[in-house]
Amino acid sequence: MTQTASPPVPIRYGFLGPAGTFTEAALLSVPGASEAERVPYESVPAALDAVRRGEVQGAVVAFENSVEGAVPATLDDLSTEEPPLHIVREILLPVEFALMGRPDTALADIKTVSSHPHAYPQCRRWLAENLPDARWVAASSNADAARLVSEGVHDAALAGAFAAPFYRLAVLAQDIHDVSGAVTRFVMVVPRGSAPVRTGADKTSLAVVLRDNHPGALLEILEEFAVRGVDLMRIESRPTRSKLGTYWFSIDCEGHLDDARVGEVLTGLRRVAAEVRYLGSYPRADGRAVEVRKGTSDEDFREAAEWLAGLRNR
Amino acid sequence: MTQTASPPVPIRYGFLGPAGTFTEAALLSVPGASEAERVPYESVPAALDAVRRGEVQGAVVAFENSVEGAVPATLDDLSTEEPPLHIVREILLPVEFALMGRPDTALADIKTVSSHPHAYPQCRRWLAENLPDARWVAASSNADAARLVSEGVHDAALAGAFAAPFYRLAVLAQDIHDVSGAVTRFVMVVPRGSAPVRTGADKTSLAVVLRDNHPGALLEILEEFAVRGVDLMRIESRPTRSKLGTYWFSIDCEGHLDDARVGEVLTGLRRVAAEVRYLGSYPRADGRAVEVRKGTSDEDFREAAEWLAGLRNR
Amino acid sequence: MTQTASPPVPIRYGFLGPAGTFTEAALLSVPGASEAERVPYESVPAALDAVRRGEVQGAVVAFENSVEGAVPATLDDLSTEEPPLHIVREILLPVEFALMGRPDTALADIKTVSSHPHAYPQCRRWLAENLPDARWVAASSNADAARLVSEGVHDAALAGAFAAPFYRLAVLAQDIHDVSGAVTRFVMVVPRGSAPVRTGADKTSLAVVLRDNHPGALLEILEEFAVRGVDLMRIESRPTRSKLGTYWFSIDCEGHLDDARVGEVLTGLRRVAAEVRYLGSYPRADGRAVEVRKGTSDEDFREAAEWLAGLRNR
Amino acid sequence: MTQTASPPVPIRYGFLGPAGTFTEAALLSVPGASEAERVPYESVPAALDAVRRGEVQGAVVAFENSVEGAVPATLDDLSTEEPPLHIVREILLPVEFALMGRPDTALADIKTVSSHPHAYPQCRRWLAENLPDARWVAASSNADAARLVSEGVHDAALAGAFAAPFYRLAVLAQDIHDVSGAVTRFVMVVPRGSAPVRTGADKTSLAVVLRDNHPGALLEILEEFAVRGVDLMRIESRPTRSKLGTYWFSIDCEGHLDDARVGEVLTGLRRVAAEVRYLGSYPRADGRAVEVRKGTSDEDFREAAEWLAGLRNR
Repeated sequence: MTQTASPPVPIRYGFLGPAGTFTEAALLSVPGASEAERVPYESVPAALDAVRRGEVQGAVVAFENSVEGAVPATLDDLSTEEPPLHIVREILLPVEFALMGRPDTALADIKTVSSHPHAYPQCRRWLAENLPDARWVAASSNADAARLVSEGVHDAALAGAFAAPFYRLAVLAQDIHDVSGAVTRFVMVVPRGSAPVRTGADKTSLAVVLRDNHPGALLEILEEFAVRGVDLMRIESRPTRSKLGTYWFSIDCEGHLDDARVGEVLTGLRRVAAEVRYLGSYPRADGRAVEVRKGTSDEDFREAAEWLAGLRNR
Repeated sequence: MTQTASPPVPIRYGFLGPAGTFTEAALLSVPGASEAERVPYESVPAALDAVRRGEVQGAVVAFENSVEGAVPATLDDLSTEEPPLHIVREILLPVEFALMGRPDTALADIKTVSSHPHAYPQCRRWLAENLPDARWVAASSNADAARLVSEGVHDAALAGAFAAPFYRLAVLAQDIHDVSGAVTRFVMVVPRGSAPVRTGADKTSLAVVLRDNHPGALLEILEEFAVRGVDLMRIESRPTRSKLGTYWFSIDCEGHLDDARVGEVLTGLRRVAAEVRYLGSYPRADGRAVEVRKGTSDEDFREAAEWLAGLRNR
Repeated sequence: MTQTASPPVPIRYGFLGPAGTFTEAALLSVPGASEAERVPYESVPAALDAVRRGEVQGAVVAFENSVEGAVPATLDDLSTEEPPLHIVREILLPVEFALMGRPDTALADIKTVSSHPHAYPQCRRWLAENLPDARWVAASSNADAARLVSEGVHDAALAGAFAAPFYRLAVLAQDIHDVSGAVTRFVMVVPRGSAPVRTGADKTSLAVVLRDNHPGALLEILEEFAVRGVDLMRIESRPTRSKLGTYWFSIDCEGHLDDARVGEVLTGLRRVAAEVRYLGSYPRADGRAVEVRKGTSDEDFREAAEWLAGLRNR
Repeated sequence: MTQTASPPVPIRYGFLGPAGTFTEAALLSVPGASEAERVPYESVPAALDAVRRGEVQGAVVAFENSVEGAVPATLDDLSTEEPPLHIVREILLPVEFALMGRPDTALADIKTVSSHPHAYPQCRRWLAENLPDARWVAASSNADAARLVSEGVHDAALAGAFAAPFYRLAVLAQDIHDVSGAVTRFVMVVPRGSAPVRTGADKTSLAVVLRDNHPGALLEILEEFAVRGVDLMRIESRPTRSKLGTYWFSIDCEGHLDDARVGEVLTGLRRVAAEVRYLGSYPRADGRAVEVRKGTSDEDFREAAEWLAGLRNR
């Protein structure tokens, strides 16, 4: 009797569309993504909800940008919507803008330039020098701006050069961003499940709501990390949406859920914060292994626990 | 001979336009602003640059929103552009959205709804329930969306109800925001000069760049405040625009530049941080007087300084 | 066949002798001690060594005095000698000195007054006023001073009034100590074993050697306590006996070895300190129950550990 | 007419006597002390009171010992008695004990050995091995023990070898201390006045009483030092003499009263502590220059103060 292999389950990934966004470029850097089905969504919440509903196995969304800062839609959705999703991968992508238009467009002919409002300030200087008379028009995404250009609504769009072929546009100018070296950090998000295995060069993401707004509350949170030798990599306050002046904190720290020191930080936060949401442990995109501080290795934690057990069981 | 009073200098204030924005509503709450000339600018940086150039005596811009968080354009401009400007007043304004259209528009007729991208997520739930089939279109401001509706480009706009008369629109639905109680905090910014006098219920705003990215750097900054009994009211990280993973901090603390405890915090930050920019001391909009902690009053500082001088001059 | 009960094992306690010391008075306050055999030892180390050798089941020694501070011999022996012993009880005894001499001694006849060197400074003012011409002579204990008086070597002794009958002396003056309200804290020490059961009003004693002498090392140790909400009740530095300027710390904190928060502090110290010696958990003599801080109860620790296990086992 | 120089004022120093104590040896290491008049006092308080009364220009007393710890009499007197005195010099002296007796004494003949109670534990091991049958007898100082030996009261004394010639004794055994490398730290104390000039390798001594006994009070004190980059060199708790469980702290830190960072620490302590007594700034005996942390030099403080003044005077 022959054994028949079950046909491979097709993999489907969501991303912030339309086709040709930076987010799709980030998704394409994930191994296997170019063969997978890629489903564009019109907003970050829509892409994340698709993961929650099981419509896609995962989604790639922007998390922060070295120029504009965190992406509020992503932070807020991951930190508050149910059920929680987990980050399993981070992807760093250089932010390089091109000006694109219909083929044969001359710079002198451009009267309107469109883009997502976040893109505009990143190219402002170049536009002021090269297209001083063009008017900028908001679009809901850079790729949508490109689409509108292809449909003749606007004359030019600010977008990643990879978007041009999707909309049959020509790149009129490359690298028009004012700040070079800008990077956007994307994350791959999946339904809650086991974390990627620990690599020794990991990162853990959390959302922490302070118990009360007393002055030392943030200091207390930071000390939970410091006392176990776990370094913060990013901390951002976000409004709680209920009252101006109350915040929760979006935090990335080094280390993995399975590291003893990270585990004790998590339980410490759980005890002293009003709410802690674990958003995932995953390999650092920069691959830099952490230097574990003296007294905070798994072996140190294990040895100390055994010593305590010995004292207690006497 | 009679002395003739010089004619009053007309006061001009800038704001993020066009007419009918929340920002104009905030400006109008400033005593005297309704008689002053109000100049709309197309962006936050444009309004702030107008103050720098002396085109207007001051400008009102949005600083943070209890739903969306800080306004990056404001934070970044105030913290990095030259010459520095100073905040002299904060204004809290409830965020209440209305749906507006041309008179006689029925909900059933609305095919497109436009707004600034920040407004959309604040009304998403209402739109999904009441206008499930309408398409949302980005605009560069809510007031601009209203203008486009008046010109027939779109069918409806999300904006503050006060914007409707400016564009001869009708309010089709009131209070359509999903979260009630949302507040936006605006600030009045003027050229650098003396701070408003100390009231005992003051706030001071700062931008602080950490000297290096060592793990305890933020903790050190917070301890400069804690050790002098000065409470933080808001702290937000912002990317430095040069390298992902490096941040500066936008900080509001209680107290006034002329309070001894605040002065010592400022000198402490100046010594340990890479850069500190003082952004102004001004009365708290909530008027709540601070309870100065034991040992941190001006009198305590004065007495301790005299004691030290006595030891040194012996 | 009848079962014969084994005869009761006689209980033997050691104490710093000779008969009539404050230490014996402290021992006598222990339930059952007045019926037990009480063995005087000539020094604290001798009494503690007797416990180690099994010569006595326990010993009472002075630990600290509200006037003179810690008793170095006790602290140093308990913290460094092998095998470790455990404190199972603390006893507070008011320090009240009497002047005693042979019956019929008049104050005017007293030419020499003897005592342990620690007793002398506690009665200095009284002696200066009442016996200005008497010479003070050192003895190895106050009780030994009393013995020497009974043998006619000296004229009067400073000791607890209870010592007089042991040496057939008369109390010539009561309450001659300069500071009233002084208290000595004694401890009952036994061979290492299980701690007394947790009462909710407990104390734990530790000896902690810092890993290196870097400036923040002590701060780090204190933060291990602070971050788990465990209050310090006493901290004293003691020289390490190897190099001037290097110290270990004798610490009492609230709580019991079996409290989750105390357990985590112990493992934290074990990891970051060069050495931690657990010296025992025992009921507080003042019986004051601790107010456990929010987030640090056993229940809080258990809940957080379960939450972490849930995250890890997914 | 010629001007006649006034005859030099003879210098008189006090010390803990009698002649031949370690303290006198420490005093003799002070430049000029061998030509000065040296007045022995029978106790530390007596020597310090002599300075207060102007009977001597200064006094040398023991401060701490690397085996026995702080000298309570010195710490307590300097920290609480009036008027305050100031430390102007520290002197480190190796602790090396000799056994001394009348000439021609054989070890086998020794039945009694006398010393101050502090000396006995430092030689215990040697005595147990070499004079197992000799009885130890307390004396009020080691030098007094030597005197008693010379008078035939006891057979041998434990003291510094330099004491032998004063009492016409022979050194029977050298270096009999159990721990080698022990050092005693003495201080030269003078009436309150200007501190010795700053050398860049200085130390400052303080006595600090916590305002209340709340758990974080000590942590707060330590943070006053940490936040200005001033390293602690020694911290010891001492009972307040009023209530068991309440302490004050004897602190040595690096730096000089005239260092800006030390000055700000002092004013900080003055504000948050119940009481701060400045006990003097003086050159470190080890001459090691401090490495001033970034941002805490006098220049850094000066620059920050000017910056603040600029902000305030605008």
